[in-house]
Amino acid sequence: MGDPAGVGPEIGLKALGQSDKELGCQLFLLGDWSLLKGVAERCDLKMPECVLSKSAWQKTCPSHGHVLVDLEALNGQTVQPGCIQAHCGLASFRYVEEGIHAAMSGAVDAVVTGPIHKAAWNRAGISFPGHTEAFTEKMGASDTCMMLYSEEMVCTFVTLHMALEKVSCSISRERVMRVLDLTHEAMVRLRGKSPRMLVCGLNPHAGEEGLFGDQEQTVIRPAVEQAKGRGMIVEGPMAPDACFLFKHRSRIDCVVCMYHDQGHIPFKMLAFETGVNITLGLPRVRTSVDHGTAFDIAWSGRADPSSLLAAIRCAVKLSRKGQE
Amino acid sequence: MGDPAGVGPEIGLKALGQSDKELGCQLFLLGDWSLLKGVAERCDLKMPECVLSKSAWQKTCPSHGHVLVDLEALNGQTVQPGCIQAHCGLASFRYVEEGIHAAMSGAVDAVVTGPIHKAAWNRAGISFPGHTEAFTEKMGASDTCMMLYSEEMVCTFVTLHMALEKVSCSISRERVMRVLDLTHEAMVRLRGKSPRMLVCGLNPHAGEEGLFGDQEQTVIRPAVEQAKGRGMIVEGPMAPDACFLFKHRSRIDCVVCMYHDQGHIPFKMLAFETGVNITLGLPRVRTSVDHGTAFDIAWSGRADPSSLLAAIRCAVKLSRKGQE
Repeated sequence: MGDPAGVGPEIGLKALGQSDKELGCQLFLLGDWSLLKGVAERCDLKMPECVLSKSAWQKTCPSHGHVLVDLEALNGQTVQPGCIQAHCGLASFRYVEEGIHAAMSGAVDAVVTGPIHKAAWNRAGISFPGHTEAFTEKMGASDTCMMLYSEEMVCTFVTLHMALEKVSCSISRERVMRVLDLTHEAMVRLRGKSPRMLVCGLNPHAGEEGLFGDQEQTVIRPAVEQAKGRGMIVEGPMAPDACFLFKHRSRIDCVVCMYHDQGHIPFKMLAFETGVNITLGLPRVRTSVDHGTAFDIAWSGRADPSSLLAAIRCAVKLSRKGQE
Repeated sequence: MGDPAGVGPEIGLKALGQSDKELGCQLFLLGDWSLLKGVAERCDLKMPECVLSKSAWQKTCPSHGHVLVDLEALNGQTVQPGCIQAHCGLASFRYVEEGIHAAMSGAVDAVVTGPIHKAAWNRAGISFPGHTEAFTEKMGASDTCMMLYSEEMVCTFVTLHMALEKVSCSISRERVMRVLDLTHEAMVRLRGKSPRMLVCGLNPHAGEEGLFGDQEQTVIRPAVEQAKGRGMIVEGPMAPDACFLFKHRSRIDCVVCMYHDQGHIPFKMLAFETGVNITLGLPRVRTSVDHGTAFDIAWSGRADPSSLLAAIRCAVKLSRKGQE
């Protein structure tokens, strides 16, 4: 459900409004009944017919139709919409923990997360910088990577939430190769064919033949060659400011980026708040909305569920193919 | 004229085809007659009526109408279009040197450069990584900065041609302040009013309150506060992936970027090959096309002079206002 004070509850209810046939899956909304009830009234949305307590859900649940699982993580009356609140941070973290538990135990095939507020997590004493890191640690994974997915553009990331000064020494041939592997595997599941991947350089002009850094030659190119040797369709390292031009975007399927803003700047320009955020390399499928809590329009009825619906569709594709 | 083997000669001739009244200035094309003659024939373009040798130009020149200054830096017959050639690198460097000399001596008000090929400069033994660095050194300047200018978007750069790992330790409060000063001054000249400037953070999420780097707090914010104290309209540091969203771009005039690709990636997506590259902080005005030599269409008649014409118009604005 994401942060109770944001748009998460509203878009969650809107997603439950779509039939399981349309979505291709059964949804379990992990959240709080008392809060959702109030949001549904404010936004003129229907509450789900099936509501289960946590313990009831763990024992048995219907085999079709969406379900609201009431985790009773907070009292809906105590939440101020559009504000950073410690108890909202804690509740949204509990929804995440429950989702991870459900996925790891096999109760669900995938977890789709709503928007959380990092400052609220922080106030609640939760130290993870974001969902990605929480899933990685709590699912016992390592060496995961973020994918930003949209119809227009797909990016994956060799490094993510770190100071820019740490980026250059954090990329290695092994890590680039790992991200190429994860990207390839996910794209095959999402689009049903081997992707054409373009790898960004790290430095301006991709290092201009070593003049502005040599990681292109010592790290990135060897990984690209290794991937080619494994039969992947991959090119680069290319000058980062060329990778996102239409002439390249239109002929490739995915850009492998070296650091957060290298991919986030162009992705958000092209697919603002309509993309999907996917964590690759976890033992279970996890996708997420690609927008924030949008506190300014919280509980107003104006939130757009497109990103959540796209995240659900991606999760379905990633889970199904994984079972084939 | 830029690299003789690229599109520079063709777009130079096309610019000379515009009247000095239309352009608001008199042009002196620094290049080689023997080469331009061949390009004019191939591309079905008119050669200029007034051609002067270097020594003749230095003694006297007409007070209106465009002029081709024949620097005799090479024999046009020896140039293969669309190829990296050392003698072309050397010739294009000589055009630049002559332009700098003419500007410093007061013979011209501004220098507008065509596209050079860095590998050709390299083969000719010229060690400057690009025009910007050559102008900075040869005009005896220091602490200059690059501006990328287009109608849609304007970016200036705190750091430029350096390895990514050197960026974080190369930004200082003084340097950010200097770039804000230069940006403000240039925008007033170009657009006739004080600009609204947006300053990018350095790190992802602008450091997320120190979690991913602290330069936003120790370096960038103090510079922004200082600039506000001087009466500038400036905000930031903002998360870099938010700075280039339409909702911000549409309400501000200029984005101050911390490193090359932070601004080049979005700028090239929005204004590919139609922008102008301006060096701020030189003792004389210098603008440039924002595209390369386009070897694939060299001497074909298909080159678009828009970027050169925009660069000329910017140079006129920057020079005129400077003299007011």
